[in-house]
Amino acid sequence: MDRLRRQMGFLLEADKLKTIVRRNHLSDGSRRENDAEHSWYFALAALVLAEHAKEPVDLAKVLRIAIIHDLVEIDAGDAFIYDAAATAAQAEREERAAARLYGLLPDDQAAELLALWREFERAETKEARYAKAIDRLAAVILNHASQGRTWREHGVSKRQVLAVNERIAAGAPPLWEHVRALIEDAAAQGWIES
Amino acid sequence: MDRLRRQMGFLLEADKLKTIVRRNHLSDGSRRENDAEHSWYFALAALVLAEHAKEPVDLAKVLRIAIIHDLVEIDAGDAFIYDAAATAAQAEREERAAARLYGLLPDDQAAELLALWREFERAETKEARYAKAIDRLAAVILNHASQGRTWREHGVSKRQVLAVNERIAAGAPPLWEHVRALIEDAAAQGWIES
Repeated sequence: MDRLRRQMGFLLEADKLKTIVRRNHLSDGSRRENDAEHSWYFALAALVLAEHAKEPVDLAKVLRIAIIHDLVEIDAGDAFIYDAAATAAQAEREERAAARLYGLLPDDQAAELLALWREFERAETKEARYAKAIDRLAAVILNHASQGRTWREHGVSKRQVLAVNERIAAGAPPLWEHVRALIEDAAAQGWIES
Repeated sequence: MDRLRRQMGFLLEADKLKTIVRRNHLSDGSRRENDAEHSWYFALAALVLAEHAKEPVDLAKVLRIAIIHDLVEIDAGDAFIYDAAATAAQAEREERAAARLYGLLPDDQAAELLALWREFERAETKEARYAKAIDRLAAVILNHASQGRTWREHGVSKRQVLAVNERIAAGAPPLWEHVRALIEDAAAQGWIES
């Protein structure tokens, strides 16, 4: 079966996501998190926190987004969200990566996952906005739990953390209230510049 | 909100899944895989291979199973599937772990995830059988890609690999055909004892 052969080729390539390391650390600060772990954590948080979405969401779609959203970083690498220049240059690299990586699948599945990834990137649907909120929340709670380790390493300011994360409000207002309290606490502890 | 406080407590505890290391290696053989990475890979494979399920499945349920199925190993640890004594002793430890870990959530969510985990363990529904098939398939394809590294390290025989994985046929017959071919190849290459 050619379909199964392509699906298996895609899965072997996707395994590389476990080697793409992000800036943020595990909650215990022991090491940096990789994209595969992050994708799982994003999915788990989306599952557990769905009741806080701004509008009722199709959870299955959000989980599919969480699972596939970072595959492009196998080719494009991770851009640190507090590095504006890096994130600006990232969009074109990620489009090429999406075409190559999802393109390993049978054509119908490639089109489906590419559309799902673009929906997430554009944040124009309620599922994509909730997913964006959870993607950011996951990083904040690990950063806070590790006493602001990544923020301290990169000298990130409270203003920057607020600016990057305030879009959580567009997808899940109660979670933004929680995240804002974590950011205030981080500033009070001196983990980010006030 | 007490619900959100409990959900956040659960998510921080769940982060430890990233530190539970399995026996099998990444496809490139560079290091062993952890449970969080495995849970993501299981979910991705379930998503991509759903058309091969024996019966049409509720994919959202399978993804939820993949995401939460290994949390018990935070307390109970990973039991090597080719170690029959270890896996037999594991069941009671995992029941206690499930009660504690899912019990961190609000009661309704705790009951929901506990029921989902038990459904997976008992493999009595079509979603659970498909999930079991994907859980095993994920390990086989990484083992094969890493030239049987974990099988070689533990002196696993072809008979054992067939016995552990033949239940893939109950959840996804075409995938069992594929896995059987990988096992035959591993035996031909001398990575498992014939």
